[in-house]
Amino acid sequence: MTADRDPERGSKRAAIIDAAIDRFGSDGYEHTKWADVAADVGVGPTALYHYFESKQHCLFVIMDQALVELGSRFEDLTHGNPDHVGALRAVLADCFDVSDHEALRNRVLVAEQGLLAHPCASPREEEARQLARLHTREIERAWTLFLVAADESQAIEVENPRLTARAILGIYNSIWVWFRPHGRMDLDRITAFFTASILAILELEPEPFEEAA
Amino acid sequence: MTADRDPERGSKRAAIIDAAIDRFGSDGYEHTKWADVAADVGVGPTALYHYFESKQHCLFVIMDQALVELGSRFEDLTHGNPDHVGALRAVLADCFDVSDHEALRNRVLVAEQGLLAHPCASPREEEARQLARLHTREIERAWTLFLVAADESQAIEVENPRLTARAILGIYNSIWVWFRPHGRMDLDRITAFFTASILAILELEPEPFEEAA
Repeated sequence: MTADRDPERGSKRAAIIDAAIDRFGSDGYEHTKWADVAADVGVGPTALYHYFESKQHCLFVIMDQALVELGSRFEDLTHGNPDHVGALRAVLADCFDVSDHEALRNRVLVAEQGLLAHPCASPREEEARQLARLHTREIERAWTLFLVAADESQAIEVENPRLTARAILGIYNSIWVWFRPHGRMDLDRITAFFTASILAILELEPEPFEEAA
Repeated sequence: MTADRDPERGSKRAAIIDAAIDRFGSDGYEHTKWADVAADVGVGPTALYHYFESKQHCLFVIMDQALVELGSRFEDLTHGNPDHVGALRAVLADCFDVSDHEALRNRVLVAEQGLLAHPCASPREEEARQLARLHTREIERAWTLFLVAADESQAIEVENPRLTARAILGIYNSIWVWFRPHGRMDLDRITAFFTASILAILELEPEPFEEAA
């Protein structure tokens, strides 16, 4: 077995992930046939199982990758930045700066988060599920710690950092349920509106947003 | 066939719905076996099919019932009430005034809303799905029209009623994803926090909340 050392293996795996994101995001996870993902990347259904144990295993890997990336983008923009308000504005601008493919991936992440709540019998599915849960908690924790630090530095008054983190993530996540990349409302308008809403929760003014971002 | 006229039929159907809400809300929809719902209400799995065509049919009926009830509670509190701010405070208080069973039902409604996006082959499933979609849109529409009226009467300034309605519903729905009736945080504290957040989005002060509710 040299499959793990095959440089094509990694790109095939990435192609499967991309095809699955498109299918899950457009047709829904439940309604997607695993064989259609195989057809999209031009492999037989059996070949798919070299990469993922099941459709659910692939879903959890997709969710985990998205969470790791969102977490590291948050970290890059906030870590060691003493300007908490500036960092917050940059994070909110970054949240909405997504490609069509990322918008679909965010929808999958939000629409299927309920599946992460329940243990899986298969060890590989369970491992991917545990990772996705860990990284979900880490994002919430990173937001909470950021808000604690912002409160301590008196940049933003935050009475309840954990609930505030949940409210911000709740409002942000809700967008992806109804947002369609080529829908009637453009992302800039939605971004401006939701950014203002999140800043209102933190009792910050929305006006200086454009300069800071 | 006299089953439809049997007074016991209605109560058995209600018992199945209640058992399914508990199962779907606690164990997750995907992880619930239809046969376990049957066992919970003391009927055989085949008997379940007298009432629902499938687990998914039952889920869509549960979601639709919840949406109809939430919509009519909103209507009762807002219709013909010229005091828009008072009506809003009453609606927010009412949103969080839920039993453990209703909290579970809300979790099912939010966790499985993605399933409503995709057509079903079975006519009965599809009919229940269409009703649940209609009533989802009606709640969003009722909130939007309420905000339009509140803006017209100059009680609350609302620049973008539709996005504001979505933000309010988004923040409200997000609670049920993580809220557990007997979790570490009590509902009163969560209610006060999220009500203040929603009022902040509308640029209203949270203080007079307790008197008004």
